[in-house]
Amino acid sequence: MDTYTRNEKTRVRRLSERGHYDRETVHRILDAGFICHVGYVIDDQPFVTPTSYWREGERIYWHGSSASRMLRTVAKGIKVCLTVTHVDGLVIARSGFHHSINYRAVMAFGTAEKIEDDAHKLAALEAFVERLFPGRWAMLRPVNRQELKATTVLSMPLDEVSAKVRVGPPKDDDEDYALPIWAGVLPLTLAPGAVEPDPRNLAGLALPEHVRHFALER
Amino acid sequence: MDTYTRNEKTRVRRLSERGHYDRETVHRILDAGFICHVGYVIDDQPFVTPTSYWREGERIYWHGSSASRMLRTVAKGIKVCLTVTHVDGLVIARSGFHHSINYRAVMAFGTAEKIEDDAHKLAALEAFVERLFPGRWAMLRPVNRQELKATTVLSMPLDEVSAKVRVGPPKDDDEDYALPIWAGVLPLTLAPGAVEPDPRNLAGLALPEHVRHFALER
Repeated sequence: MDTYTRNEKTRVRRLSERGHYDRETVHRILDAGFICHVGYVIDDQPFVTPTSYWREGERIYWHGSSASRMLRTVAKGIKVCLTVTHVDGLVIARSGFHHSINYRAVMAFGTAEKIEDDAHKLAALEAFVERLFPGRWAMLRPVNRQELKATTVLSMPLDEVSAKVRVGPPKDDDEDYALPIWAGVLPLTLAPGAVEPDPRNLAGLALPEHVRHFALER
Repeated sequence: MDTYTRNEKTRVRRLSERGHYDRETVHRILDAGFICHVGYVIDDQPFVTPTSYWREGERIYWHGSSASRMLRTVAKGIKVCLTVTHVDGLVIARSGFHHSINYRAVMAFGTAEKIEDDAHKLAALEAFVERLFPGRWAMLRPVNRQELKATTVLSMPLDEVSAKVRVGPPKDDDEDYALPIWAGVLPLTLAPGAVEPDPRNLAGLALPEHVRHFALER
């Protein structure tokens, strides 16, 4: 199946023409970023925690300190909503009502599983670093037992998933196109700035290619 | 009081030195962005919906279609967690463990109120457009009654709020600074690209200053 199944949770209701359920669109959006917002509930209170994530096949992964409230809570197998949002631009219209945002978002529902096996956990962490910085893992001081223990890695199957995307110029009311009001899109991108080498770097270290040419798949 | 009260929800637990509770820090972070993630619960299932927001004094506002599931649900006065996250950079360390993200985040808990009064609603929408594009509201085709009815505006007091911020270079293990591994920070910013005028703009319209020099307070 090339598409995720729609259900009452994942079906895009408002502006349903923006909804996408195919794996390719969902994967592309996930692979274009590294920060998600994880929603979970403790005693009827929702929490929304930003954290980094990565995808491998039909699973999404995230990680952090084994002491983290979010990870400890979510590892219990409670219901989760994980949302990834990329802001692509401000849509500037001829009326206040039609101002909008161009964006790509994925919402994934499910329950997370904790990776208990050390080798699997290590492989997952390697995949995360390699996705951001190809070739870096082999250059690093290896992970030690204590660090591995202090790190929790969770994963969730991509199953109840949908994407919502807005692209293009403003959609104004027909009669408003005759008005002398400038309209358009101001594109926005999460763009790299000038690299800041650690002041404590040893002398003569070359800037790695994976930093110089940092890019996520788009 | 210049600080928000800490409680079990808002106290930053992990890496508590990153926690901030002063109004100035929280306001600055909120004023530097326009996309938040709203967490809410329907039948034990958390949902995390990205949406735009703005701040006025000690209240945060968000809005959308009156038909939106998120807005209809949240307007009932259920518990909400609203999170704003700015990604400021990738922290590239000498070990996998110390790789990190520079970020500024605010987490706000509470219950939302629906703005019922039309004049108040209109003033809130004007404040939103003016914050992004100073001077634009007066140039626009005015909001009509139907649009106002189709728009729900919610607000929530800033009360149970905290910020969490990471800045600066990697913090590696002492002995790892002797290793010949390049480390540093790759700054990231949500940066404007080349403006895309609407192909249906009337001929000869000048690009407004609020688009040409778009900037959020930093």
